[in-house]
Amino acid sequence: MMQNSVQAIRSGVRAASTRRVGARNMSYVAPLRDMKFQLDEVRNTEEHYKKLAKTGGEGASPDMVDMILQESAKFAENELYPCNETADSVGCKQIGPNEVKTPPGFKEAYQSFVEGGWQGLSFPEKFGGQGLPSSLALFQSEITSTANWTWTMFPGLSKGAINTLIAHGDDLVQSKYLEKLVSGEWTGTMCLTEPHCGSDLAQVATKAVPAGNGKYKISGTKIFISCGEHDMVDNIVHCVLARLPDAPPGIKGISLFSVPKFKVNDDGTLTDELNGATVGRIENKMGCHGSPTCELIFDEAEGELLGVEHKGMRQMFTFINTSRVGTAIQGLAAAEGAYQLSLEYAKDRLAMRSLTGSKFPDKVADPIIVHPGVRQMLLTQKCIAEGGRGMIYDSALIADEMAEAEANGDHKKAQSYDDRLGFLTPILKGFLTEAGLEAANLGIQTYGGHGYIKSNRVEQIVRDVRIASVWEGTTQIQALDLLGRKVMLQKLKPITQHTAGVMKFAFNAFTSPTSSKYGSIRTHAAKLGKAAAEWQYLSLRVAQRAAGNKDAIGTASVPYLMYGGYVSLAEQWLKQEMAAAKALENGAEGAEAEFYKGKIAAAQFMFSNLLPRTGYLKEQMLAPIPDTMDITPEQFAPSN
Amino acid sequence: MMQNSVQAIRSGVRAASTRRVGARNMSYVAPLRDMKFQLDEVRNTEEHYKKLAKTGGEGASPDMVDMILQESAKFAENELYPCNETADSVGCKQIGPNEVKTPPGFKEAYQSFVEGGWQGLSFPEKFGGQGLPSSLALFQSEITSTANWTWTMFPGLSKGAINTLIAHGDDLVQSKYLEKLVSGEWTGTMCLTEPHCGSDLAQVATKAVPAGNGKYKISGTKIFISCGEHDMVDNIVHCVLARLPDAPPGIKGISLFSVPKFKVNDDGTLTDELNGATVGRIENKMGCHGSPTCELIFDEAEGELLGVEHKGMRQMFTFINTSRVGTAIQGLAAAEGAYQLSLEYAKDRLAMRSLTGSKFPDKVADPIIVHPGVRQMLLTQKCIAEGGRGMIYDSALIADEMAEAEANGDHKKAQSYDDRLGFLTPILKGFLTEAGLEAANLGIQTYGGHGYIKSNRVEQIVRDVRIASVWEGTTQIQALDLLGRKVMLQKLKPITQHTAGVMKFAFNAFTSPTSSKYGSIRTHAAKLGKAAAEWQYLSLRVAQRAAGNKDAIGTASVPYLMYGGYVSLAEQWLKQEMAAAKALENGAEGAEAEFYKGKIAAAQFMFSNLLPRTGYLKEQMLAPIPDTMDITPEQFAPSN
Repeated sequence: MMQNSVQAIRSGVRAASTRRVGARNMSYVAPLRDMKFQLDEVRNTEEHYKKLAKTGGEGASPDMVDMILQESAKFAENELYPCNETADSVGCKQIGPNEVKTPPGFKEAYQSFVEGGWQGLSFPEKFGGQGLPSSLALFQSEITSTANWTWTMFPGLSKGAINTLIAHGDDLVQSKYLEKLVSGEWTGTMCLTEPHCGSDLAQVATKAVPAGNGKYKISGTKIFISCGEHDMVDNIVHCVLARLPDAPPGIKGISLFSVPKFKVNDDGTLTDELNGATVGRIENKMGCHGSPTCELIFDEAEGELLGVEHKGMRQMFTFINTSRVGTAIQGLAAAEGAYQLSLEYAKDRLAMRSLTGSKFPDKVADPIIVHPGVRQMLLTQKCIAEGGRGMIYDSALIADEMAEAEANGDHKKAQSYDDRLGFLTPILKGFLTEAGLEAANLGIQTYGGHGYIKSNRVEQIVRDVRIASVWEGTTQIQALDLLGRKVMLQKLKPITQHTAGVMKFAFNAFTSPTSSKYGSIRTHAAKLGKAAAEWQYLSLRVAQRAAGNKDAIGTASVPYLMYGGYVSLAEQWLKQEMAAAKALENGAEGAEAEFYKGKIAAAQFMFSNLLPRTGYLKEQMLAPIPDTMDITPEQFAPSN
Repeated sequence: MMQNSVQAIRSGVRAASTRRVGARNMSYVAPLRDMKFQLDEVRNTEEHYKKLAKTGGEGASPDMVDMILQESAKFAENELYPCNETADSVGCKQIGPNEVKTPPGFKEAYQSFVEGGWQGLSFPEKFGGQGLPSSLALFQSEITSTANWTWTMFPGLSKGAINTLIAHGDDLVQSKYLEKLVSGEWTGTMCLTEPHCGSDLAQVATKAVPAGNGKYKISGTKIFISCGEHDMVDNIVHCVLARLPDAPPGIKGISLFSVPKFKVNDDGTLTDELNGATVGRIENKMGCHGSPTCELIFDEAEGELLGVEHKGMRQMFTFINTSRVGTAIQGLAAAEGAYQLSLEYAKDRLAMRSLTGSKFPDKVADPIIVHPGVRQMLLTQKCIAEGGRGMIYDSALIADEMAEAEANGDHKKAQSYDDRLGFLTPILKGFLTEAGLEAANLGIQTYGGHGYIKSNRVEQIVRDVRIASVWEGTTQIQALDLLGRKVMLQKLKPITQHTAGVMKFAFNAFTSPTSSKYGSIRTHAAKLGKAAAEWQYLSLRVAQRAAGNKDAIGTASVPYLMYGGYVSLAEQWLKQEMAAAKALENGAEGAEAEFYKGKIAAAQFMFSNLLPRTGYLKEQMLAPIPDTMDITPEQFAPSN
């Protein structure tokens, strides 16, 4: 396998042999130095992969990880980033009921991705994948996401469909679809939402009627289907929620089906017979123009039942963590992309003089990076991007461990990892998408008026990422999932475990030998420990209030989620600060030393400028419940 | 005059005889009930106008004010709002070097505005205006801004040019241009920025060479000129910053000129001779598509000097407060517009059940307004929109008083009002544009996925308002103006006066008879007094820190401005709460009582959920200065 994988990766980048490092202006350069720092110094990923005996860890040698990131960087920088701007300006066009044209360059980039075998990177070898740990696909997807988010959605949606078929498809379904999906020859979608129901899938009305041949006829209208129709592949496999004739009402009467665009023979060969799934329209959206958001009309389209009748919702939930982490990466990507553009602009753009005296008297004005207000924006972006990366990496490694435990038959251990991910995921999704939007908006702000002009590209990031806090469940829904379902329903167990871990880490940091040389580590460890303890205390307080009034959970939920986000971000920065301090102790020099000093500087900013946001969130969490709940709909506004 | 004005106002709305009240969904209804509340109950505007003996106060009778708002509402609802969406989708098109096509409906709406004499509402009668107090034009402009921001920019830019010519034009210039500008027959622009200099106008390079005939030849390139070329009027008068041949370098060598698009004879009659100002391009922007943002190339265009040689910058600064308050209204308008859309959607959209039990068991789901997370968003929008309106109204009345003092020859008094506006304006501009963006983004969030779809119109508000925190000086520049120039340079005098006023108001509220019946007033008065005192204390602390390190001002400035914004918003809500409590005490019933109860409910939310944000801002203000300033440009990111 090792050899195949390397070959595949190498062949995937034939067209992209050099990286454009240095040509940074208005460009994207994959942050490989920071990624390596996070992998090798902040956490010991080599050791981690060595432990994944049954789930591809032996293939994830340091060289291989390096190569995957390097080659992904080339592909993203040279093939994806250049077509990101035209994707926004040209968008997707509906040509007919089964024809949607993708933006220039998308198809070619996708072909080269498929030829490289990248889609199969972390899928099982028995379906034609490379069998590597899933974390590697996540690290890679950050790179492609930052270069071109909407392009990344096509293979991203396929991953959701592949996971669904692997978990719930029977042998026939798997042999019909999986090989083509894993190779990337076909793509997949998830068809959940309908016009009237948004996130409230209890209202799903699409019908599935048994066709007599073991198959089903699916009829109904689905909306917001990302990549629901396009011209990059020969066939598309939709995973569709629908109701059987005897289904009970509500959430417990929904089943899951696979429905291809073109009918597929049982041996997996493609027919040229369309299957009754047509595009009603593609949506005209604020951003994400490169990915077609389709209304799909199913008219007696033939499909197969996936898994068990009426258990469709529960089956879907299996992958909700995965898709939500994918959306968290959208937030991280927006922060990283906006940070890169902003930083280059701030070094380059000359305006005004520093208030403490000119820093570049030979120039007509100082570069704006001298101004405190600009630095605060850049440091905020850096803290979100590089801290957010750490949050994603931690959870990616937990997902690896869960898969390994499952492969070892240790279901109890796997469940405990799953619970942990279930707790972390709404924080990752809710917090990193909100923070990503903030970082992107700071990008426009750093550019000033030029940030509002499309050709400077930073406003596209704002428009593209704006959907991230909405889809896959809004921040408000993430927050209820976190505080209601994960924390309160489980009697505070997940938060108690989590904060115990954070406090233990803070204590270890406080007492580590490095901390005696870098005093800020002790200060930060104390602040982190305090914040974690307070987070735990606030959970108790909300539980206490909820005993008297259930709305205590709803009113506290969004600030609770954001509070957890800031504690998690601070935790990442203390980890990075310690690793950087260690490297400096060990004698790092030159550009390397500057990199580590930048980490320590950003950690300072994180703890003194961003972590204090928890203070406000705490007050909002504990604000009187009637102040939110008592106002009646009529009292919100007069009829005039 | 009275009769003329009424006639003009009446004739201006001939085409719009009924308001579309009630047809709220995806529409705009001018918030006249709240405006009347703010005018008649929160403050006594009738008394205010009675005192403006020399500046049109006698024309501003309650009936007249009512009529102006009513007719503005009809005009905005029936003529402006309907063409706001097409303005976004169709935008402006450059046809030739002196031809830019405005969106469908803009020209017709502008004609009806001109015919009604609205442009001259608050300009002197001697130039053909109605001579009413300037506050009325501001109240009106909120209504047109919310209905259609980019349309409102055309008359808005003209106002800036008119003010400039009134203050600095000689008799010849005034007689050439003012009548046509005040009638609206022509429009005007402000030409400041150039490609390389943004807000740093010291770098202005456009040249003005004496032409021998008392006029000047202007040559250079200006960018970001809003409404710089368009098809709505016969001529456009540009106010242009440029350098005379003998000008000293930097900010003290800039002069101000009037430069028409078509040459104008000295008697004010129009020629058909173009004057050498052509459009290089119109910008492709994130939003505000209805207003053309032009690159204007001046090639020996003939113009007149306005005011004194080399004093152009100082002359421009006279109107900076005015234009910044106009931008603050953009923030307010975004908040109001997003709030209206969100509220209707939240009452209408059915999803999930309330966690405390179904509120509408006969429906398939509860309307989303039952959910705490949705209510928090709506209440935040309401607090920003209706509190922001109060902030604008207060400063509009101060501007009236300044004009009256000036008309009375009491320059000292006028100066003190000007100082007060100079202190309030950066808060209005910086805070209300940031808060307006937040409210607009909450609009998308309330709509969920549907908020990302253009046809639902809420995402347009986000894109349109995003520029508001940037142009007319970014939030960062407003913050330096406030804390550096206004507070520190004047040794804290403005903030000391201001907070003394707020504390006095809070004390009066605390001890008022109404507060004994409405306990929340006492709580809120105490919180407001505390916040004002702390604001004053923080000013001292920053001054103390700045004595040791000037960067204390730069690092504290943005949180300082936002802190002041929240204190000001809370002050407005206590005012509104008191007025509402009084009305309830006086026996308000039915829908009126609901309106007042809504005010008291929103005040509760303001003080328990939004004012606490000051806590975080305080910590950021006092964060260690090196945490922002020490990181070097090289340390921000590795070169990879």
